[in-house]
Amino acid sequence: MTSTWVYRFDQIDEAQRAVGGEWDDVRGLLGGKGANLGEMTRLGVPVPPGFTVTAAACNAYIASAGSLPAGLWGQIEVALSGMELQTGKRFGDPSNPLLVACRSGAKFSMPGMMDTVLDIGLNDEVVKGMTKSTGNPHFVLDSYRRLIQMFGSVVLGVGEEYFERVLSAERERTDAAEDSDLTVESLESVIDQFKGLIARWASIPFPSDPYEQLRMAVRAVFDSWDGKRAQDYRRAAGISNDLGTAVNVVSMVFGNYGTDSATGVAMSRNATTGEAKLEGDFLINAQGEDVVAGIRPTRPIHELADVMPEISAQFAEIAHRLEGHYGDMQDMEFTVERGKLWLLQTRDGKRTAQAAVRIAVELANEGAIDHEEAVRRVTPEHIEALLHPRFVDEAKAQADLLGSGLNVSPGAAVGYIALDPDLAERWAMEGRPVILVRPETKPDDVHGMLAAAGILTSSGGRTSHAALVARQFGRPAVVGAAGVAIDLSKRTIAVKNHLLLEGDMISIDGTTGEILAGEVETMAPDIDDPWLSTLLGWADQIRTMSVRANADEVEDARRARRFGAEGIGLCRTEHMFFNPERLPVVQRMITAPTEAERNEAIAELLPFQRKDFADLFRAMDGQPVTIRLLDPPLHEFLPDRDELQRQITDLQIRLHSAPDLHAMEELLSELDQTKTMLEQVDSRRETNPMLGLRGVRLGLQYPEITRMQARAIFEAAAEVAADEVIAIPEVMVPLVSHEAELENQRGLIEAEAAAVMAECNVRIPVKIGTMIEVPRAALVADEIAVYADFVSFGTNDLTQTTFGMSRDDAETSFLVDYLSRGVLSANPFSTLDEKGVGALIEIAISKARSVVPDLAAGICGEHGGDPASIELCNGLDLNYVSCSPFRVPIARLAAAHAELGRP
Amino acid sequence: MTSTWVYRFDQIDEAQRAVGGEWDDVRGLLGGKGANLGEMTRLGVPVPPGFTVTAAACNAYIASAGSLPAGLWGQIEVALSGMELQTGKRFGDPSNPLLVACRSGAKFSMPGMMDTVLDIGLNDEVVKGMTKSTGNPHFVLDSYRRLIQMFGSVVLGVGEEYFERVLSAERERTDAAEDSDLTVESLESVIDQFKGLIARWASIPFPSDPYEQLRMAVRAVFDSWDGKRAQDYRRAAGISNDLGTAVNVVSMVFGNYGTDSATGVAMSRNATTGEAKLEGDFLINAQGEDVVAGIRPTRPIHELADVMPEISAQFAEIAHRLEGHYGDMQDMEFTVERGKLWLLQTRDGKRTAQAAVRIAVELANEGAIDHEEAVRRVTPEHIEALLHPRFVDEAKAQADLLGSGLNVSPGAAVGYIALDPDLAERWAMEGRPVILVRPETKPDDVHGMLAAAGILTSSGGRTSHAALVARQFGRPAVVGAAGVAIDLSKRTIAVKNHLLLEGDMISIDGTTGEILAGEVETMAPDIDDPWLSTLLGWADQIRTMSVRANADEVEDARRARRFGAEGIGLCRTEHMFFNPERLPVVQRMITAPTEAERNEAIAELLPFQRKDFADLFRAMDGQPVTIRLLDPPLHEFLPDRDELQRQITDLQIRLHSAPDLHAMEELLSELDQTKTMLEQVDSRRETNPMLGLRGVRLGLQYPEITRMQARAIFEAAAEVAADEVIAIPEVMVPLVSHEAELENQRGLIEAEAAAVMAECNVRIPVKIGTMIEVPRAALVADEIAVYADFVSFGTNDLTQTTFGMSRDDAETSFLVDYLSRGVLSANPFSTLDEKGVGALIEIAISKARSVVPDLAAGICGEHGGDPASIELCNGLDLNYVSCSPFRVPIARLAAAHAELGRP
Repeated sequence: MTSTWVYRFDQIDEAQRAVGGEWDDVRGLLGGKGANLGEMTRLGVPVPPGFTVTAAACNAYIASAGSLPAGLWGQIEVALSGMELQTGKRFGDPSNPLLVACRSGAKFSMPGMMDTVLDIGLNDEVVKGMTKSTGNPHFVLDSYRRLIQMFGSVVLGVGEEYFERVLSAERERTDAAEDSDLTVESLESVIDQFKGLIARWASIPFPSDPYEQLRMAVRAVFDSWDGKRAQDYRRAAGISNDLGTAVNVVSMVFGNYGTDSATGVAMSRNATTGEAKLEGDFLINAQGEDVVAGIRPTRPIHELADVMPEISAQFAEIAHRLEGHYGDMQDMEFTVERGKLWLLQTRDGKRTAQAAVRIAVELANEGAIDHEEAVRRVTPEHIEALLHPRFVDEAKAQADLLGSGLNVSPGAAVGYIALDPDLAERWAMEGRPVILVRPETKPDDVHGMLAAAGILTSSGGRTSHAALVARQFGRPAVVGAAGVAIDLSKRTIAVKNHLLLEGDMISIDGTTGEILAGEVETMAPDIDDPWLSTLLGWADQIRTMSVRANADEVEDARRARRFGAEGIGLCRTEHMFFNPERLPVVQRMITAPTEAERNEAIAELLPFQRKDFADLFRAMDGQPVTIRLLDPPLHEFLPDRDELQRQITDLQIRLHSAPDLHAMEELLSELDQTKTMLEQVDSRRETNPMLGLRGVRLGLQYPEITRMQARAIFEAAAEVAADEVIAIPEVMVPLVSHEAELENQRGLIEAEAAAVMAECNVRIPVKIGTMIEVPRAALVADEIAVYADFVSFGTNDLTQTTFGMSRDDAETSFLVDYLSRGVLSANPFSTLDEKGVGALIEIAISKARSVVPDLAAGICGEHGGDPASIELCNGLDLNYVSCSPFRVPIARLAAAHAELGRP
Repeated sequence: MTSTWVYRFDQIDEAQRAVGGEWDDVRGLLGGKGANLGEMTRLGVPVPPGFTVTAAACNAYIASAGSLPAGLWGQIEVALSGMELQTGKRFGDPSNPLLVACRSGAKFSMPGMMDTVLDIGLNDEVVKGMTKSTGNPHFVLDSYRRLIQMFGSVVLGVGEEYFERVLSAERERTDAAEDSDLTVESLESVIDQFKGLIARWASIPFPSDPYEQLRMAVRAVFDSWDGKRAQDYRRAAGISNDLGTAVNVVSMVFGNYGTDSATGVAMSRNATTGEAKLEGDFLINAQGEDVVAGIRPTRPIHELADVMPEISAQFAEIAHRLEGHYGDMQDMEFTVERGKLWLLQTRDGKRTAQAAVRIAVELANEGAIDHEEAVRRVTPEHIEALLHPRFVDEAKAQADLLGSGLNVSPGAAVGYIALDPDLAERWAMEGRPVILVRPETKPDDVHGMLAAAGILTSSGGRTSHAALVARQFGRPAVVGAAGVAIDLSKRTIAVKNHLLLEGDMISIDGTTGEILAGEVETMAPDIDDPWLSTLLGWADQIRTMSVRANADEVEDARRARRFGAEGIGLCRTEHMFFNPERLPVVQRMITAPTEAERNEAIAELLPFQRKDFADLFRAMDGQPVTIRLLDPPLHEFLPDRDELQRQITDLQIRLHSAPDLHAMEELLSELDQTKTMLEQVDSRRETNPMLGLRGVRLGLQYPEITRMQARAIFEAAAEVAADEVIAIPEVMVPLVSHEAELENQRGLIEAEAAAVMAECNVRIPVKIGTMIEVPRAALVADEIAVYADFVSFGTNDLTQTTFGMSRDDAETSFLVDYLSRGVLSANPFSTLDEKGVGALIEIAISKARSVVPDLAAGICGEHGGDPASIELCNGLDLNYVSCSPFRVPIARLAAAHAELGRP
């Protein structure tokens, strides 16, 4: 029994039965485009007759290194006969020719990634016959020109630029503004020249046999699945390489038959804002490629009503029906051929993050989907994009506005101008922010677009390649900025009265479309979008994990709370020590020669710390505030060793040329002080400070620091209690590896808390816990749990010690190489390493809860805001994640997703 | 029902029944001394009548903060009545008085640690009556003097030196050489003065009631269990604080009755060499204290046959019988009272490491114990002591011999002279080696003796306190060096024609008894002792774990094999890179600006490495050689950064005072080169090099280094195969945290091995494995095992990352504090941390063997030579441990012990 490799669009029921009925499997078999063409056919939407070659056929083709699978060609011929029956035309018949388009269609939409060939079935004979039967030689020759051009570049691999050069020469010669203005004679000449190009550059001449054209086009689509640009896109979008692509063979309909014909693309809602209103572009007398490529200026979809009112109404009705059917915004292609509307494609539309949120909320409010589905529809990446920075108003007001374009992907971006994607990628890898500036973008440019902080093009529309990719990956983008003149040979941009060089700084505002000179200051966004609030509210009802923020200062705490944080999961007290007002006191504390002098300095720090904590408690009134005791090695608070050495060298050199005895004495005294400080620094120098005297080890060495911090915490709590603020302090001891360390510190903290409560005559809940941030703490969590009211996984440090990999050293050296070579598939400092670090967390949770069944556990550290890590934490039954304030909304959504995805 | 607190010696059967029959429990109840007095009584050995107060009574006394437990005193009175019946004397009866000794006796022998009071029962009345009945006033008064002196110092706490001062003044006044030469009148005066001392310094006068004397003596023994010196000893010897001590009350027999009386101590074999010959000392007309204290010159035990032939024979017979009964060398005290022999004590004798080995082997050869028991009898500490360094012959020949003493504890020791134990301890903690030099040692000195590298005393014999303690703890010691004159006030030592100050260097040879001036060069020992070879051979038959050595050079490898290693478990190839001949090449490799230049330098290293490996393979012919690929960060091979900076500073200063242009140019050129090298060093600088670019990360970055090392290994194996040497290389990849790293390196190594085998037309077994030295590797050992033929736990690094504690930083800072405060009970870099690191090893073994059931696994690193860690490894089913060559014999024994102790 041979496999079924081919399904006509009207055989969608058969295809669905063949895969067992699930729509997702239908999409897997027929690709998204093919499945939807079948579905539209089933719904009675006008779709040109055609058939789909399955993705399974593509996989069989790739597996056999390029042989069409057995039976495929026969099935194609049979399906073609069916099309001939449905259209009443015959493939290759000069008197009444059937022309077909051959288009790729993978399971997941990959715009522009795969290759398309139109007008297959034309050759010299057919052109002659068709000219006779249509009486429209210009249309026929233009179609023939297109076929040869597309076939030549896409199937035969002849450079696109050769064809463009012929066309532009011909346009110049005949003063034609656009290709469609070319005369019949010009087109004949162009066709001859195109055939010559192919004869010269391709291995075979242009095939005149329509069946050979189709066979080669199908192979070309299959081959393009494994092309570099498709692979790049899939890697970036996280699409599996195993899916394969289907091929759709559709009978041609022509938007370029004349003024009663048109072609266009449209979204059922606004893809930028999410507003429930048709949005799109169309062109009269054109083929679809012309709209997408952005070569001719398009007209907005609402003007279709002016020129073709009935068609416009019919399209609006179909759009509404399709959206209702799919339960999501649709992105549609249509063609009007001599007054008849054909739908060529529908798919779920790409959208900005802002639109994604609004559409999801509005669809739920319309009753099309439920709240859970609405939450599912919005990705953490959407929220992240919404939280892109924007320009500081005053800075923007003062900046030099160079021009503007279409605001196709929101957010502010600042970077060095890079005029080609390879350079953009290289600079980005060197850590330089880049704005990729191009006339327009092509699929080959995706690597540079992904590397860039923002994208600026001088041509193209809202549905251009640049706009689609930028939106999908959340890169701020301004496209179609006609005022920007790019000179790729001189590597310059002329805009307004400026001439900018590649490497100059530029700023773009993807939210407004503005282009600004130089580096304009950006600021973090706020989340005042009502749809976002609604959606996150729904997410909050779904998730079971709590979301806290890492915040050291009151401003951070306030922002965190505004963003929906339910407490502070990590307050790093050392950040308070770096305050310039306090640093000298801290240095005195560290270098104190006697205990008395040390205690004096510590006493000076107490009021500062008390105020810090009181402010935090007020900001977080009624919510827990987890305060980590002093963690970093003390030498971090002392001057830089190299700087001191430089000063000493400098002083020594100056000493050798001191003008007089007095100057010499002064220099000697300064030298002496500097040397003393260097000795202090040297005495605290460590080979591996990450593994040295820090965290709880400091607390054991200097119990007076622990006492001071504990006192500051509980005095602050007592102080705010007087104003009826509810402080819920959680004191967290860092870097514990043995329960005895925690036992010791717990004793100190409890004693201090009891003393403060007695002195102030208040009751404050005393919760003392620990970070689990070295592997041993995880392995003996049952012993540690005896002394802990909570534990928090410090996944940054835990990752460092579990891998034996210092973040400081790895991320700028071998880790880059590991990631680019695929030795590691993800950066473990961004996404929690499930098998190593995750296994330790699992061990720790299970051991600790074997002793204290309801022990509260959370994570703090970078991973707390990473969706994949949040999913892992949810699976490990953690009670909360804590992340930077800006990531709190992302974490709220990701925690809901994790709960929805829970088996 | 009241408890039974007291057992007469002849009630040993009852005591044994009371504890359920186990001899170990009898010892727990009655203490070692009491149990053995009972046992000797049961065996018919002449023991003076007496009874034992149980250790349980002591514990009850301590638990009740110093109240004698209910019923105890009544039971003592009953037992005393029994003694009166057996001896026909009465306690406190002037006409026929029973005198008793009160001696401590804990479960484990603690020489000199606990207090003893003799002659209890004497008072003015009894002395009068006894003088009348014996007609020997000198003997009676001398006994009375002893009682008051011992009671005063031990029970009432009056300083020993006060009594000594009175005695020496009296000796001087009357020209008496020894205390026994004092006249009756002198003794009467001394007794009066002693009573006066007590009246003045103690809180109560000397009690004349014999029962009060006994009661107070029993309490004093109980109290001494908790004294500082007993606690110090127990901590050092690892004896639990909960055992308590028993008290033995024994009727006095007198070795000081006259010339037909004597007292002595003897071992059934030579405690220093192990030779099967009685060894000991005795004194005619003396009490036992005189022998042990080393005040009077003793006579060797073999001379007893000259003066008391029958007694001598009887004692030899008893010694033989007791040794046979206990199956071990016995340490006995005896007294001859007017021609009758009494055994006062027997116990297993302390011995040197050398003697322990010989005795165990000879007892097994005699059939007294089996091989397993012989292996059990020797501790790893014994082997370690045997492996103490000895002096280099030539260095010793050239050294200035200052004198000699008794060679009581073997080994060479070199250190700074410290004249008191506190100073010795302080210097030792500062890392300075110390020789503790004392006239004699007392229990109070133990902390200083343990801290010292060696011990030298000017008086005392083979059974002196100094000799016993030194032997037990394996400190080289020379005692009784009469030529050494110590001036404690001037802090000097006069010896031969030298005057040495405290703090001067001195060397002592505990094996020969020699004292040498200055610092004499020492060398590591060899193990040519035939008894040791035999014993280790037996251990090899018992153990199931293999023992390998860590060796980088051929000399190490040869020594390791001589010491019984069964392969090399870790060869650190980087040690070969530090060779001065190669370092410049290595530096060129690192700083090479182009790949070609790097490859050139690498190619230069190949022949060096090949020779290194060929030498190792020859030395280890037929045994596996595990070669670890390059591990440390490359900057370790570059010049020191501080040194470079100093050079630059220096050059800059010199530049400022350059005499002419030519000099300036030369300085500038040198400055330039130095700065370039500094840039190289800086570019490779890492914040935490331990967690940085090292191990397999280097191998991925510079595959050419891996290839070179693999080629060198297999070319070397091919080369030696020509000489019929069997090379078994095991290539070990360090610092793997993800299986992809090992997969990558395995590919490189396998390719290189295949190439070499093809070129040389030989077959060499290719085994490739990895270190497990970061926690992640342990957690994903199942994934790593897929690419590993073996795994080896690098427990040094694994401990660092599991604790998050850098060895370099911790061991010189907070870890010292942690250990002294008891936060950690053992240094995890010396003894494997069972709960953390051990848990990871267990996880790794179980995961890895779930994939590869017979995967070979071992450990390398410091822990491989530590007995406690070896026991843990045996329990974790590791196949081998690898340690430094010198520790191989220790590991062989410890592995046997681990197997014997396996449940």
